[in-house]
Amino acid sequence: MSKLRVAVIGARGRIGSEAVRAVSEAEDLELVAAIGRGDKLETLVEAGAQVAVELTDPGAVMGNLDFLVRHGIHGVVGTTGWTEERLAQLRTWLAAAPEVGVLIAPNFSIGAVLTMRFAQQAARFFESVEVIELHHPNKADAPSGTATRTAQLIAAARAEAGCAPQPDATVSALDGARGADVDGVPVHSVRLRGLLAHQEVLLGDTGETLTIRHDSTHHSSFMPGILLAARRVPSAPGLTFGLEHFLDLD
Amino acid sequence: MSKLRVAVIGARGRIGSEAVRAVSEAEDLELVAAIGRGDKLETLVEAGAQVAVELTDPGAVMGNLDFLVRHGIHGVVGTTGWTEERLAQLRTWLAAAPEVGVLIAPNFSIGAVLTMRFAQQAARFFESVEVIELHHPNKADAPSGTATRTAQLIAAARAEAGCAPQPDATVSALDGARGADVDGVPVHSVRLRGLLAHQEVLLGDTGETLTIRHDSTHHSSFMPGILLAARRVPSAPGLTFGLEHFLDLD
Amino acid sequence: MSKLRVAVIGARGRIGSEAVRAVSEAEDLELVAAIGRGDKLETLVEAGAQVAVELTDPGAVMGNLDFLVRHGIHGVVGTTGWTEERLAQLRTWLAAAPEVGVLIAPNFSIGAVLTMRFAQQAARFFESVEVIELHHPNKADAPSGTATRTAQLIAAARAEAGCAPQPDATVSALDGARGADVDGVPVHSVRLRGLLAHQEVLLGDTGETLTIRHDSTHHSSFMPGILLAARRVPSAPGLTFGLEHFLDLD
Amino acid sequence: MSKLRVAVIGARGRIGSEAVRAVSEAEDLELVAAIGRGDKLETLVEAGAQVAVELTDPGAVMGNLDFLVRHGIHGVVGTTGWTEERLAQLRTWLAAAPEVGVLIAPNFSIGAVLTMRFAQQAARFFESVEVIELHHPNKADAPSGTATRTAQLIAAARAEAGCAPQPDATVSALDGARGADVDGVPVHSVRLRGLLAHQEVLLGDTGETLTIRHDSTHHSSFMPGILLAARRVPSAPGLTFGLEHFLDLD
Repeated sequence: MSKLRVAVIGARGRIGSEAVRAVSEAEDLELVAAIGRGDKLETLVEAGAQVAVELTDPGAVMGNLDFLVRHGIHGVVGTTGWTEERLAQLRTWLAAAPEVGVLIAPNFSIGAVLTMRFAQQAARFFESVEVIELHHPNKADAPSGTATRTAQLIAAARAEAGCAPQPDATVSALDGARGADVDGVPVHSVRLRGLLAHQEVLLGDTGETLTIRHDSTHHSSFMPGILLAARRVPSAPGLTFGLEHFLDLD
Repeated sequence: MSKLRVAVIGARGRIGSEAVRAVSEAEDLELVAAIGRGDKLETLVEAGAQVAVELTDPGAVMGNLDFLVRHGIHGVVGTTGWTEERLAQLRTWLAAAPEVGVLIAPNFSIGAVLTMRFAQQAARFFESVEVIELHHPNKADAPSGTATRTAQLIAAARAEAGCAPQPDATVSALDGARGADVDGVPVHSVRLRGLLAHQEVLLGDTGETLTIRHDSTHHSSFMPGILLAARRVPSAPGLTFGLEHFLDLD
Repeated sequence: MSKLRVAVIGARGRIGSEAVRAVSEAEDLELVAAIGRGDKLETLVEAGAQVAVELTDPGAVMGNLDFLVRHGIHGVVGTTGWTEERLAQLRTWLAAAPEVGVLIAPNFSIGAVLTMRFAQQAARFFESVEVIELHHPNKADAPSGTATRTAQLIAAARAEAGCAPQPDATVSALDGARGADVDGVPVHSVRLRGLLAHQEVLLGDTGETLTIRHDSTHHSSFMPGILLAARRVPSAPGLTFGLEHFLDLD
Repeated sequence: MSKLRVAVIGARGRIGSEAVRAVSEAEDLELVAAIGRGDKLETLVEAGAQVAVELTDPGAVMGNLDFLVRHGIHGVVGTTGWTEERLAQLRTWLAAAPEVGVLIAPNFSIGAVLTMRFAQQAARFFESVEVIELHHPNKADAPSGTATRTAQLIAAARAEAGCAPQPDATVSALDGARGADVDGVPVHSVRLRGLLAHQEVLLGDTGETLTIRHDSTHHSSFMPGILLAARRVPSAPGLTFGLEHFLDLD
């Protein structure tokens, strides 16, 4: 079987260089180009790339995608900064190239995506739900973006199912003890030397609790998701937003 | 809105008496009958039961279900001992009463059902999967039936997805250190005073792990699942096997 | 070997009745009296009690202890409400009966006592320490008294060792995300249906974390500590405050 | 205050180079020499080293320590392969230099040392104790040396306290389900991609459990222990075996 021909754009960044290595080591993929700032996009065409992994920055991503779509190269995009305008523009380009697929993923960690998905599915069956996220102490924001997003998804699922508010008889509390309130879901942020990025969703009902925990212990955790996306995107024409749509969860 | 009229059969058993209480306390349900060994099934008809929760024993369940189906009463069944023959017989009865629904559930703990389901869905995305189950030290079998079933579901999902065998470089091990092998999935059984029934599924890939843990801390953990089933079974004609089909997970 | 003769005062309360059962079942102890409100203390003398477990209320405890000390009966006291004045009074009584021992313990859970002790010992070796406590949602205060006390002990140990403040680069946080501040130690309170009383101390330094977790799953968790205290108090004359002093930890 | 003058022997190994960096970055220490295979030990004397961190191999360590003791340089030793004969030889050398201190530590992770210590202290208070160790799947042995050692310490503490055997009603078990038996303590070994080195000690009694967990997430976890040892060894003449003796735990 011939290997899928994959290029990496942004190959000299921290995630990009990991992606170069991960593609090279995958038995069913062939790394045909690895370009960075200042390199020419034409290299991808000359190298016969079928899929390009785009890991650059908001200033570069639109130009790169315009090129990829025009040349029939599928895209797997980790670059952030997406707005409705940008997505609309991308959709216009893709409409003119109906065979090309582009996946944009805010998070390529399969574990993080599954945690959010499972939390969302389980949320309506339990009286109580709280989120604890734990990170290294150099992190600037609390809660983490992932935890906030997870809590929002949980709250939306509960609202849709008509769940009652969570039980909480607290009458006397120190400031902050009960965490941050994200749409009615308490979120607690721990900052601890020795940790990287971790998240725990706790769900409880009469006589039982369910805990879904994701531990990210190295930034290479994005690689399995990037490879999975590269393999899947050629058969997913048009725009897909979110890795969960490639996980066949339903 | 009129309340759903629910009866309990096997109302004097440990789970049965919990069910009587749970149905009584549910605002949208009305407990119309609670019968046990020696009581007449006709009571259910006289009481106008729409749903009967059946929590007896393998010697009594078929007679009870025959009666329920013939009288148009939906069934929620926790009694065990199902064989293909029994299921076939039940299907025959239900074919003659196309509006009646019967749910049979080996496990009414929503947390346990979700754990199995999520483990099954996640299994194919991770290189490594192991199961740890932890119970009180009076338990006679190891691993627990739930852990064995969970490992089998994981193994089947991985086989279907064509996953490679799990990595394991162990060359020197004490007997038992690496757990029991259930279809290629290691299962570890802890027996500890102070515990009731707990299960943890650990999934790992490059740079990340995902853990799904279920803690059952009281046998009342079955009640939310029984109530959910009672509410859903009137709109699910025919035979449903497994609570997961009432959880709208996909 | 003759059994130690033990009485229970407050025998009809929730903890008291558990204590009656636990003493009865212990092979090396003999339950010689079990009295409650309205019963006469003289019963203890007539029964030849060597140790009395005192589980009443702040209104009754001083009278009971006065009697015990005067009659040469050792005391194991779980009743709360101790002030410096009360302790001074008790010490005066004990000075007149130098062979009598009284243990007062705010917490008879050996697991809780060890958790506090270990947290205190470990606190100075790690850059970061946080506490998460998790309880049922009917609890009125947050954090729990045990968690507050644990954080205070941790903070004191760190201050004594001259530890630097904990690292925390948070610049943007939702209200409450980083928990309550107890003497510089963040404490997070989770309230979840299905839980009873749980506490986790997380300590982290470069490349490693240490977690000490206590799960109390039934109020019978006080029993092993009460029995241990009953066995030890006859050889510990005078006043001992805190079960940790009977655990031979140093 | 003048800084403590520290040298590293074995400075080009993986742990050695981490130690060079850690000593350099510590505000109260000065790195005065960093030597490796082929470099002359006299460098340490010329550089005025007060303490040498020895991270070489069993073939080199004795020669290095002979030199250090003779020149009045304290040693912090991570090299393995110690036998009674070697320790006796070292003690003879130290007897002739009564002011010199040498610490040999099989494990410089403070978290691992505390876990063993706490497990040992807690072991006699709980009916049940089990150990779960979790490592990356490239590990060759199961259980890990640390887990085996931990279980042996637990078993010895229980034997000394006269504890009864652990309760375990298992009558029907799959091979390996109940783990490896290390002196009566069950030990379970998990091998999972995404993990590094982790250990959990579970202790349980009526109504409560205590869990002590150590997560080693990077080999830099040895550094805080090495620095602590370097600071302490000048005031600990003679031979000390085990970092726990420098932790003032009792």
